[in-house]
Amino acid sequence: AMEKSYVSMFLLLIAIPCTLAKDVGKKETKETTVKPKLPQTLSRGWGDQLIWTQTYEEALYRSKNSNKPVMIIHHLDDCPHSQALKKVFAEHKDIQKLAEKFILLNLVYETTDKNLSPDGQYVPRILFIDPSLTVRADITGRYSNRLYAYEPTDISLLYANMQKALKLLKTEL
Amino acid sequence: AMEKSYVSMFLLLIAIPCTLAKDVGKKETKETTVKPKLPQTLSRGWGDQLIWTQTYEEALYRSKNSNKPVMIIHHLDDCPHSQALKKVFAEHKDIQKLAEKFILLNLVYETTDKNLSPDGQYVPRILFIDPSLTVRADITGRYSNRLYAYEPTDISLLYANMQKALKLLKTEL
Repeated sequence: AMEKSYVSMFLLLIAIPCTLAKDVGKKETKETTVKPKLPQTLSRGWGDQLIWTQTYEEALYRSKNSNKPVMIIHHLDDCPHSQALKKVFAEHKDIQKLAEKFILLNLVYETTDKNLSPDGQYVPRILFIDPSLTVRADITGRYSNRLYAYEPTDISLLYANMQKALKLLKTEL
Repeated sequence: AMEKSYVSMFLLLIAIPCTLAKDVGKKETKETTVKPKLPQTLSRGWGDQLIWTQTYEEALYRSKNSNKPVMIIHHLDDCPHSQALKKVFAEHKDIQKLAEKFILLNLVYETTDKNLSPDGQYVPRILFIDPSLTVRADITGRYSNRLYAYEPTDISLLYANMQKALKLLKTEL
């Protein structure tokens, strides 16, 4: 007997617009026919010498086990704001050094956890999670309408926010 | 004001035992201090020349867009049964060729979607999802107590099951 289990997250699979972009002409995420360079890496250019986790579930598990906070970068390859931030992030030696103290994850597809989009699903968007598995919604950038967005010129603020995230919350039990 | 959003999936983060293994001595997944070889790849040795997706959400999105079925391999690095199956899978030319027709995902951490564990969270475990986003619970291996497990000697059955998965279901609308 054939058992059909429809996948529940179907409705959540919406394309993520690069809402910081001035060019609103291309909203659709296209499947390109160009093959990616093989093998594909988890860093995607955000720091090839750093250790990146594959999935959100892995990141949470490792955070809890290692007592390191999670840093999650949501981005898109065809979003110029994401690309510009990535360049600055990857070339910033202090950021790269400090990033070693985090469980790192970069994602181009949204998870189903709404805690990761407190004010929407725009990119680029950077969130921190404490090892107590609390989303640090208090660690924000400069833009009141997109609290977790950073422009390349905000890299020092991002660095300061990474330092803030490393001061772990006390677990309230 | 600090806003705390506790991550809901916390309780689901349980270690996955390699239930096919005869050696039941090491049940705990350990954080090793050994750094992985950099950069980490998405293939993890299951086929370095194939294109692998990073996350479940990405796999579903690409399946729907490309009309290819998803093949999800759950495995663990320290599970000898997973390792043995991987070796045979990676060296099997017909399997590797046929795998190009799938949206591929290999995972060492479970997702939160219960549709992916119809009879438990053991490894190795291989499931197919139709582009209509239906889990193909009807495509099974030889073991009645672990329907989606394959041993290296089952590689021909796995090949046949991949062919079966490529005959797409009609969407019932």
